[in-house]
Amino acid sequence: MSLAPWRSPLAKALHLNRSLAFSRYFQLATITSEGKPANRTVVFRGFLQDTNQIQIITDSRSEKITQIEGQSWGEICWYFTKTREQFRISGNLNAIAANCQDEALKTARINVWKNLSDSGRIQFAWPDPKQQRSEDNQAFEGLEVSEKQPVANFCLLLFNPEKVDRLELRGNPQSRWIYNLDRDLETWSTEWVNP
Amino acid sequence: MSLAPWRSPLAKALHLNRSLAFSRYFQLATITSEGKPANRTVVFRGFLQDTNQIQIITDSRSEKITQIEGQSWGEICWYFTKTREQFRISGNLNAIAANCQDEALKTARINVWKNLSDSGRIQFAWPDPKQQRSEDNQAFEGLEVSEKQPVANFCLLLFNPEKVDRLELRGNPQSRWIYNLDRDLETWSTEWVNP
Repeated sequence: MSLAPWRSPLAKALHLNRSLAFSRYFQLATITSEGKPANRTVVFRGFLQDTNQIQIITDSRSEKITQIEGQSWGEICWYFTKTREQFRISGNLNAIAANCQDEALKTARINVWKNLSDSGRIQFAWPDPKQQRSEDNQAFEGLEVSEKQPVANFCLLLFNPEKVDRLELRGNPQSRWIYNLDRDLETWSTEWVNP
Repeated sequence: MSLAPWRSPLAKALHLNRSLAFSRYFQLATITSEGKPANRTVVFRGFLQDTNQIQIITDSRSEKITQIEGQSWGEICWYFTKTREQFRISGNLNAIAANCQDEALKTARINVWKNLSDSGRIQFAWPDPKQQRSEDNQAFEGLEVSEKQPVANFCLLLFNPEKVDRLELRGNPQSRWIYNLDRDLETWSTEWVNP
């Protein structure tokens, strides 16, 4: 698949906002088994090779894993504070876990692990998230993980966009574009719409 | 109802991040009629009087109005970039439209309208959102709205929190608290959990 037409404005936004580390954070919404929305900040880990798939990481103990098993559709809201642009990206999520059999995806998972900082990697060895915390920090101390081999609970999440709603707040009036993927043709349409 | 225990750390975060105007923006996730998540940036408009209800504004022509008619539950993700804190706030949404009969809520809707900037108010007179845009900007020009009386399509959204997941990324390990509302007792519990 060729580069989607929203990739160029997104690359430009990432470039113009690059002085702010948090410009690589966005909010990912999923659905719980009760049919309620869940929403959290995650970090952009680049695109999968030469695809339009967005790489995110998570822990297999995280609630979002169960959520996307039930409903794989998600929506990213990515707001760039310096240039005042928003990308709302909808698509399917696919978790690449330790038991993945696809060679290319296995490699992608390992590569993302290798690119993490030490402090990013060690969090996967922390005790179970959202369980009652003990007063001392012993469970968080003296942990070690390999720099090369991901721990079993490390997951690569691939987000495959099918629709993008791009809003530029600068200018009066503002500007908005809707990009839609035609799944059969694997082509994207672009429409300029009212903000 | 008394002030919830997460109000004090939220007020502190708002204060410490006050130099950044976008610290008053957060991402609101809702559910579409197809059961998919929707996620967009909205602006914090304060709390409703002496309640814990978060005020947001929207246009009755916005998709989120139909969405919350079908599923009133939403989740806010509010990330503070300077202090590196996240508040995930879940609760029910209630749209206060022009036809609202409750006197106190009618007044709240009018007060929020009065507090908007001129450029914020005029957007409610813009042509229908997400419709095809015409090449000239005529439809966006020469518009006027009252400063005192909201236009018919102006909606106040009230978000009534029932659960808050607060995460402090600073520190090693990070710190996380879960706050839950007991609806019958109208009291909040607080639990310190693993990040």
